[in-house]
Amino acid sequence: MMEKMKVARMVGIRDMRMEQEDIPTIEDDEVLVKIEYVGICGSDVHYYEYGRIGDHVVNKPLILGHECAGTVVEVGKDVVSLKAGDRVALEPGRTCGKCWYCKTGRYNLCRDVVFMATPPVDGAFAEYVAYPADMAFKLPDNVSTMEGALVEPLAVGIHAANQADVRLGQSVAILGAGCIGLMAFKAVKAMGAGDVYITDTIDSRLQFAAKYGAKVFNPRNEDVVASIQGLTNDEGSDIVIETAGAIPSTRQTIDIVRRGGTIVLVGLVPDGEVSLNVARLIDKEAQIKTVFRYRNIYPSAIKAIADGNIDVKSMVTNTFDFDDVKQAFDYVVSNKSEVIKAVIKME
Amino acid sequence: MMEKMKVARMVGIRDMRMEQEDIPTIEDDEVLVKIEYVGICGSDVHYYEYGRIGDHVVNKPLILGHECAGTVVEVGKDVVSLKAGDRVALEPGRTCGKCWYCKTGRYNLCRDVVFMATPPVDGAFAEYVAYPADMAFKLPDNVSTMEGALVEPLAVGIHAANQADVRLGQSVAILGAGCIGLMAFKAVKAMGAGDVYITDTIDSRLQFAAKYGAKVFNPRNEDVVASIQGLTNDEGSDIVIETAGAIPSTRQTIDIVRRGGTIVLVGLVPDGEVSLNVARLIDKEAQIKTVFRYRNIYPSAIKAIADGNIDVKSMVTNTFDFDDVKQAFDYVVSNKSEVIKAVIKME
Amino acid sequence: MMEKMKVARMVGIRDMRMEQEDIPTIEDDEVLVKIEYVGICGSDVHYYEYGRIGDHVVNKPLILGHECAGTVVEVGKDVVSLKAGDRVALEPGRTCGKCWYCKTGRYNLCRDVVFMATPPVDGAFAEYVAYPADMAFKLPDNVSTMEGALVEPLAVGIHAANQADVRLGQSVAILGAGCIGLMAFKAVKAMGAGDVYITDTIDSRLQFAAKYGAKVFNPRNEDVVASIQGLTNDEGSDIVIETAGAIPSTRQTIDIVRRGGTIVLVGLVPDGEVSLNVARLIDKEAQIKTVFRYRNIYPSAIKAIADGNIDVKSMVTNTFDFDDVKQAFDYVVSNKSEVIKAVIKME
Amino acid sequence: MMEKMKVARMVGIRDMRMEQEDIPTIEDDEVLVKIEYVGICGSDVHYYEYGRIGDHVVNKPLILGHECAGTVVEVGKDVVSLKAGDRVALEPGRTCGKCWYCKTGRYNLCRDVVFMATPPVDGAFAEYVAYPADMAFKLPDNVSTMEGALVEPLAVGIHAANQADVRLGQSVAILGAGCIGLMAFKAVKAMGAGDVYITDTIDSRLQFAAKYGAKVFNPRNEDVVASIQGLTNDEGSDIVIETAGAIPSTRQTIDIVRRGGTIVLVGLVPDGEVSLNVARLIDKEAQIKTVFRYRNIYPSAIKAIADGNIDVKSMVTNTFDFDDVKQAFDYVVSNKSEVIKAVIKME
Repeated sequence: MMEKMKVARMVGIRDMRMEQEDIPTIEDDEVLVKIEYVGICGSDVHYYEYGRIGDHVVNKPLILGHECAGTVVEVGKDVVSLKAGDRVALEPGRTCGKCWYCKTGRYNLCRDVVFMATPPVDGAFAEYVAYPADMAFKLPDNVSTMEGALVEPLAVGIHAANQADVRLGQSVAILGAGCIGLMAFKAVKAMGAGDVYITDTIDSRLQFAAKYGAKVFNPRNEDVVASIQGLTNDEGSDIVIETAGAIPSTRQTIDIVRRGGTIVLVGLVPDGEVSLNVARLIDKEAQIKTVFRYRNIYPSAIKAIADGNIDVKSMVTNTFDFDDVKQAFDYVVSNKSEVIKAVIKME
Repeated sequence: MMEKMKVARMVGIRDMRMEQEDIPTIEDDEVLVKIEYVGICGSDVHYYEYGRIGDHVVNKPLILGHECAGTVVEVGKDVVSLKAGDRVALEPGRTCGKCWYCKTGRYNLCRDVVFMATPPVDGAFAEYVAYPADMAFKLPDNVSTMEGALVEPLAVGIHAANQADVRLGQSVAILGAGCIGLMAFKAVKAMGAGDVYITDTIDSRLQFAAKYGAKVFNPRNEDVVASIQGLTNDEGSDIVIETAGAIPSTRQTIDIVRRGGTIVLVGLVPDGEVSLNVARLIDKEAQIKTVFRYRNIYPSAIKAIADGNIDVKSMVTNTFDFDDVKQAFDYVVSNKSEVIKAVIKME
Repeated sequence: MMEKMKVARMVGIRDMRMEQEDIPTIEDDEVLVKIEYVGICGSDVHYYEYGRIGDHVVNKPLILGHECAGTVVEVGKDVVSLKAGDRVALEPGRTCGKCWYCKTGRYNLCRDVVFMATPPVDGAFAEYVAYPADMAFKLPDNVSTMEGALVEPLAVGIHAANQADVRLGQSVAILGAGCIGLMAFKAVKAMGAGDVYITDTIDSRLQFAAKYGAKVFNPRNEDVVASIQGLTNDEGSDIVIETAGAIPSTRQTIDIVRRGGTIVLVGLVPDGEVSLNVARLIDKEAQIKTVFRYRNIYPSAIKAIADGNIDVKSMVTNTFDFDDVKQAFDYVVSNKSEVIKAVIKME
Repeated sequence: MMEKMKVARMVGIRDMRMEQEDIPTIEDDEVLVKIEYVGICGSDVHYYEYGRIGDHVVNKPLILGHECAGTVVEVGKDVVSLKAGDRVALEPGRTCGKCWYCKTGRYNLCRDVVFMATPPVDGAFAEYVAYPADMAFKLPDNVSTMEGALVEPLAVGIHAANQADVRLGQSVAILGAGCIGLMAFKAVKAMGAGDVYITDTIDSRLQFAAKYGAKVFNPRNEDVVASIQGLTNDEGSDIVIETAGAIPSTRQTIDIVRRGGTIVLVGLVPDGEVSLNVARLIDKEAQIKTVFRYRNIYPSAIKAIADGNIDVKSMVTNTFDFDDVKQAFDYVVSNKSEVIKAVIKME
């Protein structure tokens, strides 16, 4: 194919332009996907706003977007798992398949990963993406491509729940009610969690969480540690998942967790360092697990959506057209507390 | 207390009589429980019908019943966790607390267990039972004592799901749609299982299972192995739970399970021996786990019922009064295929 | 390279011929390895003697041999992990890297595996083999290529020990004292096992095992179940590893294992079916794990040899020159009980 | 028994006196043990020097010592596992057996534990101790009571290795070469660890560790993070065990650990708080496990000593007579860097 397609390229801080470029050609093991929905992730917004995330710097124009789904329009000659017309969600990291991490099933730790929208790798705000067939997961008829685009943040939430190894009836405290916190909430409930306690400083998010059955707490109004301890007979919560990436909430995890319990850290505090009461952690013999992206989750996430076991549609608070993608980013930058998940409809 | 209470004592095969005896006195760490509901278990029926299960022989009159719940009427002086008026489910095995199995948390394997209604230990078909407080689990207000009596078979189902280590979206085949098979069904769904395939030779049971969302198969009408393989793209089911205790279904587990998958054996075939295709099991590198009663499950089972995460009430197909307990046993003996769970209302 | 090399090709049952063929050319991610040592595996012998193993049939001339090591003589242009002169052990299975099993780290279950010396894939009885660099594991200076060739059967033993999840001080019964049984013995000891009980019907093998500290038992002379039960205070062995592939020993695993213990099945009984006392297995709540080849073990196996933590050299009972490879096979066929491991020195 | 025995009672800071008191009487499930060896633990020394450890305050005279072994001289009428003359090591914590932690096998987290030499519970610097038989572990003939007293600190090291889930060939960095660090070293080696890197600021301890095969590093002389990264091809160590309880080493754990690796925290920093680079921990998706005492380890620890798999005798650097116990404590207080383990011979 030598036809042209439209892409949205970030060319500078808070600067994004529509461009025309060649539709990519596919390798023998790839499929060409017409992208239909792309979610805007916090990392996309951070690149857009600051031009970097830690050591990852946007040094040259970059296509953002890695939460995406669409329809297969062409398949490489070695591809047997998919055919034109199939609707797919794309898992945005392509890994080497040969290193120790890949061979042991922890491919999310592969040092040679090529990850969409992480500089210098282009992402999904493009009409077409060429992608390896084994990382394009077919959506059943009853799962839309908008839901397909939401599989990515859901995968983070499920990975957090997996790292926690949540068991039937266990109590879970989730610190932070943004998109990832809420996805973790849906994941732990789908796995049988009992009471879920969610904290956030933004009341509208808490109301959203409460609507789906969480017990919610705003640290601006109350001592959330005391409240959760009180509701758990002073045992603490079996599992604590930190998604806010804030220093106070990261510190609270140790106070909230039960003896022998599990803390899962997902959110990154801006400068990385947090003073933790390590002695208390040891006294409780609690453990800290962490989440870096996800692995081997797309099939079960899609299945859970298809079965109605996890609802992701309700997470979408804002939808924009592709031509308005810059406005969408500007809106999200200015309305962070209100937006849970914004998605771009690509056509 | 030296007052008298009514008990139903099995005095011979298919012979059960109402007797009067002293209400038991409690130890310092015990509670006296007025029993309100007792479920009739397959093992109760087997003792009633044959006078023995394997090496366990009813040599002298025995009170049957171990699925029970009621209301605390008196507490020993060391008991702080319960008070009179609390409604509780009793976990029927009391273990030594000192052996290697108990210390490592696998108390269901304790050789010195004293288990209700396993000869010569009396069970729960009595107006009152004295029981250790730590094995009497308080029911929340929204869980009835009838549901409390059903925690016991549910615990077997949950233990089977735990042994399978069921994960979000995994497929599960359950062979046998009796009470335990259906409880396992409810347990794996509560933990996030995807498709559940259930086989049984009795259509009414399959209809019951289908009503709750299982895909059902009758081996009298179709090749269940081929059907399940077909529905799983010839991969097989991630998990297979055998609850029928039949030779053909026990053999089928190896054909139905996926490569690297997990078989859980719960049902006991009458004479114990089954010819298995061990080479196929090895070729798939599948594993076989087994279930002997349960451990550490009552709290989460009760929580799951209270949260509406697991419904057990629908399992009760037949209810009898305590004075009709012999008729209840006779009915169950004669109507095995129709009865899923019969319970006795004790007052 | 268009030069010729010598290969030993099985052309019929008990018929093997030296042939000349082109030295293979390498892909960009491959290395060319001059083979120095190849072990003769039981499966090689079985193909040689019977022309098939189950469904795997030698329909056309085949190079046998998959336990091999040698020296890198040429590297593809994408290879950075190895250089000419490096000595390497080759892991004989090449997998797809894209299926669910590969992605989850269980690549030994990959349906698209290409495994040396499994028809129609040629093996290692050749002067040169072209091989993917990521499956060629560098040997430290103090590990010989003869030891390198023994990594393969050791990997099976280590995988058995991993499947058993052997813990410090646990007792292990190993049924069968052939090469795999003895490798499992060395593996479990390296991981901290306590008492190891080994059974075999061949006294010379038992003497070999006893020399390295095992307690040995010949079922022709004694009731091995009773003996092991006696030595474990009637508890049974924490772990039982079956490597004999015999019906009686496969049946004994259930009698020997401890309550809550683990059986690992490695050996394949010839016709696949074994009658097992499933009720006893359930009563003990024991589990059965299985072993199909191995995964992710070469690095740790080589490290254990290099550290002196596992000795494999002592396993070699017979060494032959490459030109005598047919005689070697004939010798092994005729002296199965005496040979623990025969290796071919390729130059 | 109403005879008198000699005990050493701490009556104030750095004040300990020999006293006479009644030999204790035993309960039906207890044994009376004539104590033969007691090790001096860091916690004993801390109480002696400062009168408190965190919230645990020595408010009234206290017998210290919890690392102990001796000979059974009398058994309660319910005791069947031991008889007079048996030599035993005592596990110093007695737990409730009824709480959630005890029932799930994590009895070290029991809130109602009664632990020797933790105020106000008397310890083992006494000629006789009455103790529950199930917590008195019989020593085989080839394990001395001096070794029996060392089972306690070894159990901490083994629990650290268990929490790390050390696997064959894995690299382990141990920060701190005091008694616990060295015990962890012996434990991980017994379980098959590969390279072990040990850091400490005291050269004599490092020499001791090096003698047993560790690669040793003194942070006063070199950048230990860089050194260990260099020796692991910049991958980092699979496992990092912190036993020094120092802020710099606790911080280093995150820099030393491999992506996906495991940190185990054992040592308590004095004021509890440590600033950690949480973002780096998350980026590596590493986990932090912790160690609070130990559980279910005495049998395997004793077995490992009996088999010669773990040597503990070499850890004893100083031996004192019971009459010199005060001098022993004063010596240890003044020579902390030199003493690895001091033991008191009780007769």
